[in-house]
Amino acid sequence: MELWFTEKQTEGLALSLLVTRTLHRERTPFQDLAVLETVQYGRLLVLDGVVMLTEADEFIYHETIAHVPLLLHPEPRIVLVIGGGDGGTVREVLKHPSVEKVVLAEIDERVIEASRRFFPTLSTGFTDPRLQLAVGDGIEHVRNHPGTYDVILVDSTDPVGPGVGLFEADFYRMAAAALRPGGLLAAQTESPFVNRELIRHIHKNMKEAFPFRRLYLAPIPTYPAGWWSFTLAAEAEVNPLEPRILPGLATKYYTPEVHRAAFALPPFVAELVRKE
Amino acid sequence: MELWFTEKQTEGLALSLLVTRTLHRERTPFQDLAVLETVQYGRLLVLDGVVMLTEADEFIYHETIAHVPLLLHPEPRIVLVIGGGDGGTVREVLKHPSVEKVVLAEIDERVIEASRRFFPTLSTGFTDPRLQLAVGDGIEHVRNHPGTYDVILVDSTDPVGPGVGLFEADFYRMAAAALRPGGLLAAQTESPFVNRELIRHIHKNMKEAFPFRRLYLAPIPTYPAGWWSFTLAAEAEVNPLEPRILPGLATKYYTPEVHRAAFALPPFVAELVRKE
Repeated sequence: MELWFTEKQTEGLALSLLVTRTLHRERTPFQDLAVLETVQYGRLLVLDGVVMLTEADEFIYHETIAHVPLLLHPEPRIVLVIGGGDGGTVREVLKHPSVEKVVLAEIDERVIEASRRFFPTLSTGFTDPRLQLAVGDGIEHVRNHPGTYDVILVDSTDPVGPGVGLFEADFYRMAAAALRPGGLLAAQTESPFVNRELIRHIHKNMKEAFPFRRLYLAPIPTYPAGWWSFTLAAEAEVNPLEPRILPGLATKYYTPEVHRAAFALPPFVAELVRKE
Repeated sequence: MELWFTEKQTEGLALSLLVTRTLHRERTPFQDLAVLETVQYGRLLVLDGVVMLTEADEFIYHETIAHVPLLLHPEPRIVLVIGGGDGGTVREVLKHPSVEKVVLAEIDERVIEASRRFFPTLSTGFTDPRLQLAVGDGIEHVRNHPGTYDVILVDSTDPVGPGVGLFEADFYRMAAAALRPGGLLAAQTESPFVNRELIRHIHKNMKEAFPFRRLYLAPIPTYPAGWWSFTLAAEAEVNPLEPRILPGLATKYYTPEVHRAAFALPPFVAELVRKE
């Protein structure tokens, strides 16, 4: 027998992974959570039927969402991760010696628990004394913490289900207010192939709170169309092509050259965020 | 009813596209050929069950395989395309005013015919007087044309079926001999995620004929894992980061910045082609 997990990524596009074992399945207060063992990419975390990560490719997403903004900030000390209950983003943030505290605002504690149990290579940061768990709504969290963070990373699900508010103008306004002077926000902002209207919508929603915005790109084989966008946002202009060099930063995807390459937008992507 | 085309890209990975119509299906002397209309990516060309291209994403592959080497060569005049019967690569090559002649060595004339009928945006070059069709075996063609070409583009299928010889050392030796002094070869060289041993094998096979080799990358959403490698090869060293600028070159993916970015290899890819 062959058992295939299939995600219908859009109306007309599906990705399937051959599964050897269902390791875990539960209905949390927020979503349907599953951990599957796949032949191609190792363990797979699925929320509401959507691929969150696999062991084999998660490093690209997590290194990209974390190191790009952290190495563009002169000295990130206090960092907020919204979503990201799997711990992958926290793991990368904790590689920065300047970071004194990382707050993880994940709404669904069960994701954190599942990661502790099934994803030992992702949840390494959960025992770090610099990590502070703030289980709850990320929007409430930023509302209640003005002027607090050097960097905010929005490591959300897609804008359906619990993640929907994290793509709206109200949230961006509060997130901007939660930053300290010179602060940066980075967010996952969906596929430049199959979520083109959504990227335009997100950038429009960000515009008022973040006059400076730059799209950047990375390949994520298990996300729709295999190529993903992130957005770097700030109040004032930043030169995104001059990251600090952090000697000894252990990565499998990120390098300063890959950082710069991520901002080279092909014309069909650049047109999504062209200034009016 | 929903009709899905599914390609099992590896033992454990599959991509599916919702199909509205089968436009064409035939058994050619070389392979099974199908043209399908998909909801997500427009028309789809399938050879032996494997996605060759879709109307929506083909520009990335064709711009990348063509413009990178053509803009690294000081003055490409005579160009050979091996495979590529769909015409997409030829279309891009013909955008270069220095090009006096493009020879298309496609083994399967039925692919050319299918493109003429079903892919009007790809087959535009087939009426250009600079194009010379050389229907037949690309390996034979290079053997019979020593010292002839400025640039050779290996736009092959995967190394199974008719394309298999195009990844072997014998072919690379003859291709190197078919180049004029200062000539360049570029080839599609499979996925850095799911064909890692194959990339190592190809580079080993190229080594003797082409002392200079550089991997470069582009996202191709309909290929396995959505991210693809190409290899630039030459007898002598070339600086791959300084392409000529061709004013007025109309592209949707390629820019000089995207060109440079394509050569920024993440460590997990660089290790595939590290020199011993």
